[in-house]
Amino acid sequence: MDVWRIEREGYEPENATDNGNRFLIGNGNIGVRGTLEEYTANKLVAVNLAGIYDRAPGQTWREPINAPNPFFVQLEGQGAIIKHTQSLDIRHGLHHRETVYENAILTIERFCSMAEASILCQRISVQAKGKPITIITGIDSNVWDINGTHLVDYETELIDEVIKVSAITSELRIPITVSERCNHKENKIREIDNSVFRIFTTKENIVLDRIISINSELTSGTYDEKLKAHIEKWELLWSASEVKITGDKKAQLSLNYSIYHLHSIAPRHKDGLSIPARGLSGQTYKGAIFWDTEIFLMPFFTLTEPKMARRLMKYRINTLQGALDKAAYYGYQGAFYPWESQDGGLEGCTDFNVVDVFTNRPVRTHFRDLQIHISGDIVYALKKYIDWTNDDSILSDGGNKLIKASADFYLSRAFSRPGSDVLEFIDVIGPDEYHERVYNSAFTNRIAEYSLRQAGYDNKVRGYREIDGIIEQFDGYFDLEDVSLDTVRSRLVHPKEYWGTQGGVASTTQIIKQADVLALMQLFGDEFSDDKIKKNWEYYEPRTEHGSSLSACMYALGACRFGRADLAYPLFMKSARSDLDGGGKSWAGNIYIGGTHPAAAGGAYMIATQGFAGLHLKNGKPMLKPSLPEQFDSIEFPFIFANKNKTVSVTHKKAEIC
Amino acid sequence: MDVWRIEREGYEPENATDNGNRFLIGNGNIGVRGTLEEYTANKLVAVNLAGIYDRAPGQTWREPINAPNPFFVQLEGQGAIIKHTQSLDIRHGLHHRETVYENAILTIERFCSMAEASILCQRISVQAKGKPITIITGIDSNVWDINGTHLVDYETELIDEVIKVSAITSELRIPITVSERCNHKENKIREIDNSVFRIFTTKENIVLDRIISINSELTSGTYDEKLKAHIEKWELLWSASEVKITGDKKAQLSLNYSIYHLHSIAPRHKDGLSIPARGLSGQTYKGAIFWDTEIFLMPFFTLTEPKMARRLMKYRINTLQGALDKAAYYGYQGAFYPWESQDGGLEGCTDFNVVDVFTNRPVRTHFRDLQIHISGDIVYALKKYIDWTNDDSILSDGGNKLIKASADFYLSRAFSRPGSDVLEFIDVIGPDEYHERVYNSAFTNRIAEYSLRQAGYDNKVRGYREIDGIIEQFDGYFDLEDVSLDTVRSRLVHPKEYWGTQGGVASTTQIIKQADVLALMQLFGDEFSDDKIKKNWEYYEPRTEHGSSLSACMYALGACRFGRADLAYPLFMKSARSDLDGGGKSWAGNIYIGGTHPAAAGGAYMIATQGFAGLHLKNGKPMLKPSLPEQFDSIEFPFIFANKNKTVSVTHKKAEIC
Repeated sequence: MDVWRIEREGYEPENATDNGNRFLIGNGNIGVRGTLEEYTANKLVAVNLAGIYDRAPGQTWREPINAPNPFFVQLEGQGAIIKHTQSLDIRHGLHHRETVYENAILTIERFCSMAEASILCQRISVQAKGKPITIITGIDSNVWDINGTHLVDYETELIDEVIKVSAITSELRIPITVSERCNHKENKIREIDNSVFRIFTTKENIVLDRIISINSELTSGTYDEKLKAHIEKWELLWSASEVKITGDKKAQLSLNYSIYHLHSIAPRHKDGLSIPARGLSGQTYKGAIFWDTEIFLMPFFTLTEPKMARRLMKYRINTLQGALDKAAYYGYQGAFYPWESQDGGLEGCTDFNVVDVFTNRPVRTHFRDLQIHISGDIVYALKKYIDWTNDDSILSDGGNKLIKASADFYLSRAFSRPGSDVLEFIDVIGPDEYHERVYNSAFTNRIAEYSLRQAGYDNKVRGYREIDGIIEQFDGYFDLEDVSLDTVRSRLVHPKEYWGTQGGVASTTQIIKQADVLALMQLFGDEFSDDKIKKNWEYYEPRTEHGSSLSACMYALGACRFGRADLAYPLFMKSARSDLDGGGKSWAGNIYIGGTHPAAAGGAYMIATQGFAGLHLKNGKPMLKPSLPEQFDSIEFPFIFANKNKTVSVTHKKAEIC
Repeated sequence: MDVWRIEREGYEPENATDNGNRFLIGNGNIGVRGTLEEYTANKLVAVNLAGIYDRAPGQTWREPINAPNPFFVQLEGQGAIIKHTQSLDIRHGLHHRETVYENAILTIERFCSMAEASILCQRISVQAKGKPITIITGIDSNVWDINGTHLVDYETELIDEVIKVSAITSELRIPITVSERCNHKENKIREIDNSVFRIFTTKENIVLDRIISINSELTSGTYDEKLKAHIEKWELLWSASEVKITGDKKAQLSLNYSIYHLHSIAPRHKDGLSIPARGLSGQTYKGAIFWDTEIFLMPFFTLTEPKMARRLMKYRINTLQGALDKAAYYGYQGAFYPWESQDGGLEGCTDFNVVDVFTNRPVRTHFRDLQIHISGDIVYALKKYIDWTNDDSILSDGGNKLIKASADFYLSRAFSRPGSDVLEFIDVIGPDEYHERVYNSAFTNRIAEYSLRQAGYDNKVRGYREIDGIIEQFDGYFDLEDVSLDTVRSRLVHPKEYWGTQGGVASTTQIIKQADVLALMQLFGDEFSDDKIKKNWEYYEPRTEHGSSLSACMYALGACRFGRADLAYPLFMKSARSDLDGGGKSWAGNIYIGGTHPAAAGGAYMIATQGFAGLHLKNGKPMLKPSLPEQFDSIEFPFIFANKNKTVSVTHKKAEIC
């Protein structure tokens, strides 16, 4: 098994959506879905641009822009398909397709340059078998837009053999330009609608090298030179982040794949950006930044690339004003961070985030206004970043303001009962979104208390209730109907029904969407004995739908804590292979929520390093408490602690940090 | 126009449900739906018993019992219907039907004795036209049960010419017995299933007088003697309560009809009962007592029959333990009265009070747990009772305990923001049930504050916000979508959809179910200027669906306050004719909520006396502020104040209390 390569054989347009996620390439600035070159909008072709948000006409929210597709290639005269393979070199972010037709063999390599953030490259090879083959390639504007068309005022140009499509976004009038040069000059140019194509005809072999730039000048250099620089950059990234597993090639491949994705979407090219919940795989989830970044991605970057981790935190610091504005809008003090954060910290989450499948009406949801744990999650991630990097300069660089403002928010959002000074958080949503408007969510209360303490506030916060050592997820949770996941599922009338909100099948039961108490126990691991984690795991795991890709990681980490790597292992594989195996929830009501799952990838890294190897800080020092799956012989990885390069190596006999 | 009689011509089985409500007779102990004698269960035949609650097998709530129907009559050999009239003498509670068939004329009179609470009487006259007519009459067990069969272990008997059906309730094993004697002896007896019938055959005229008792011994006396005692009792009731309107016979009839209903359902026979929200018209709303009784019925009984009013208040005093238990269940102190109160103050309201029409699943509603204004409503009614009757003996007779316990409840239910001692009521439902889980409902906060003050507590309570003199119904109400009632209605996908709960069409708009701020302004009328009431009326009325029969009354009273009897008049007619005209909302989701509307009847009385005549207390004395509709020449009525009989008479020129 090649642990650096994934591939699928057979031409399968019916799987275009899953393959689009599975074979994604990206460089943090641009993400290109793994759709075949001949595909167009209806197969969800997207060249997704990081950090550029705009509102499509008639919509109430912004979403990221998909540029015109410069990787478009179509043949004529090639005949029927005999054999087809799509593959991805995950060591170097190289997408390949090879298709054997009756009259030609088509091979294409493409990549988003890791060395130059605005550059995409494509090499098209056609081996004709004597009959004339027409190759149409160019910049195709017929790309996926999930909620209406974003680009208007198109212009197509040909200047000095460079073809170019430019347009502007409809709301904010942001210019978008795609330029391309090709090494092969003998072509006709055809401009159709808003696209421009080169047309080649050959009876023999031909290789077309295409260099593309988006929103930037075309740089010089040949395809091979670009490829070399790109590979060198990838090798550098792996040298700081590769996790070597022996004894389990499938696990090795899966984890490599997860880390590949994390690298592909990290915005290394520019300050002021963070990583959207669906990476750069399209416009779903509005290209917004969720708590996923702080809780599930920060550990990877903190350990392997602290500069990148700092940048992610700086995004929150830089967007503090958005959080202050949001708090003020709701009548609170301080900083209430957006649930779905876009450019400038604008809240992208609407009040109606689900569409009812029966009435087609939007349903009022409370993710935006009641999921108040978000500010605390950010404070938590900031402090963890400092703990591992010792980079407390970030505090004076805006971190302290963020911490103070978050604490002020919680203080103003709290209530007390008459005659008591204990703060309670009434009417919130915890990580488990199937239960809206709950009181004293254990997770929320603890993260709020944490946030208050970091700012030096000593207000008492209602602790969590326990029965026989089981922490109640929120007030009254134990009184909800206690039925099996299968029973709840059997009550669905429509397959795309949303399980939460007032009429949802889970909302009145103990069935939860994702780790909630277990997430609490992971974030505040010091406060819970292994035995207590075990007890809570055994109670909550069977009641968890794992309807979010954030869920498996927390349960796996919990299982490692009480020495059950066998329970953690399938959850690790599920997390690591989330986008590889496809499937997963792609619908919330009638809203498509598919795309890649960076948090699952980050979670896989967390399970490998914090779970299986058991890396954690104790009294400010990195320590190990391994729980290695029997499938592994060893695990080894580098990490950075306080600016020093370290290496963890764990076998079944030995565990050490050097 | 006969202002004491209603009638419908034509045989209309398709209107059996509306007519069942329209022609209801009752005596406070027993209510008999106005269904024709030959009807059975599928036409909602019900002999509804006050204060006896039981759970049908498989149900989670109790509902009142319908006894076997002793008024059953069926003819054979009569031929086709030529003419049919059903009518009700509302002066004396006498139900009549006359049907001319090809071969016979059938006339039946029936009544629930106002003189003997367990006695029903029926006179059947058949004029045969020479052909043999068979008359089947008796006690028919095939009666309406809305949610499953309540009675089991039936026995049928014939002893000394008395026929008898007895059974027991399935949960609590309460015996139910119906006995009947008939003046005419020449009959055959037929026992079928759980019913027993007398069969007469005649070719001539025959009159059958039937005396029936339910759950009691059959008393002696002829039909005519029973009728005389019944009529005398009704005359006594009218002498204390008749409201005379000149100039508008339709209004006079309608108000007579309302008062007729109030008398028919008042439990004069026994301590410990109150009046259910659907009177004695069946099992809908579980036969439970709502705030309707305190806010919409108490004024009538307080002014016309203080002993009855005291009994209604005593019901709440006697069921205090149920309210203490409910508060304790939710973790609060004091008394949280049931939203739907049954025997012993048991909460009849379930957590799932609506069925979703699309999924057929019960939906979690919050009437039971969040409609906390109920305790304050009861305190309010108690104090008003004392203000009008000066009977403060009720305070030492349990009233003080009720007041203290209600205040304790509110205190424990309140929250404050850190650093503030102002109490807020978070997460409640006000009178407008289409908006669940709101903060600081203006109505709720004021009634809670009132309740606290009556117990001598001086805690501050968050006042209501105003914009340009308009009181905001609850925090954030003005931010909701401001669309017309028609627009909201046009969004319905299914005609029986419930408008409230998280996905309901009204829930995210300013469209409200019923008077809420206007109810506040009526209950605390002293605190608002006429001009302010006008402003709020003009804002809220177009935004009100009037989806509850409690709504029109409050708006009518408001309109009278600012001198617009013309606006009040149609609302008065709507209230007074609620059960006469039929229609109205009979469905909440898939749950049938039809039946009679005592609160609308009580509301009609309130509009006539407090609105049009403007009777109110000022500094403890009855005063008038009339606002007579132009349709009326005068209005005149007796009332009792502090044990003294008084009379109000109002014309367009003069208003006086003697």
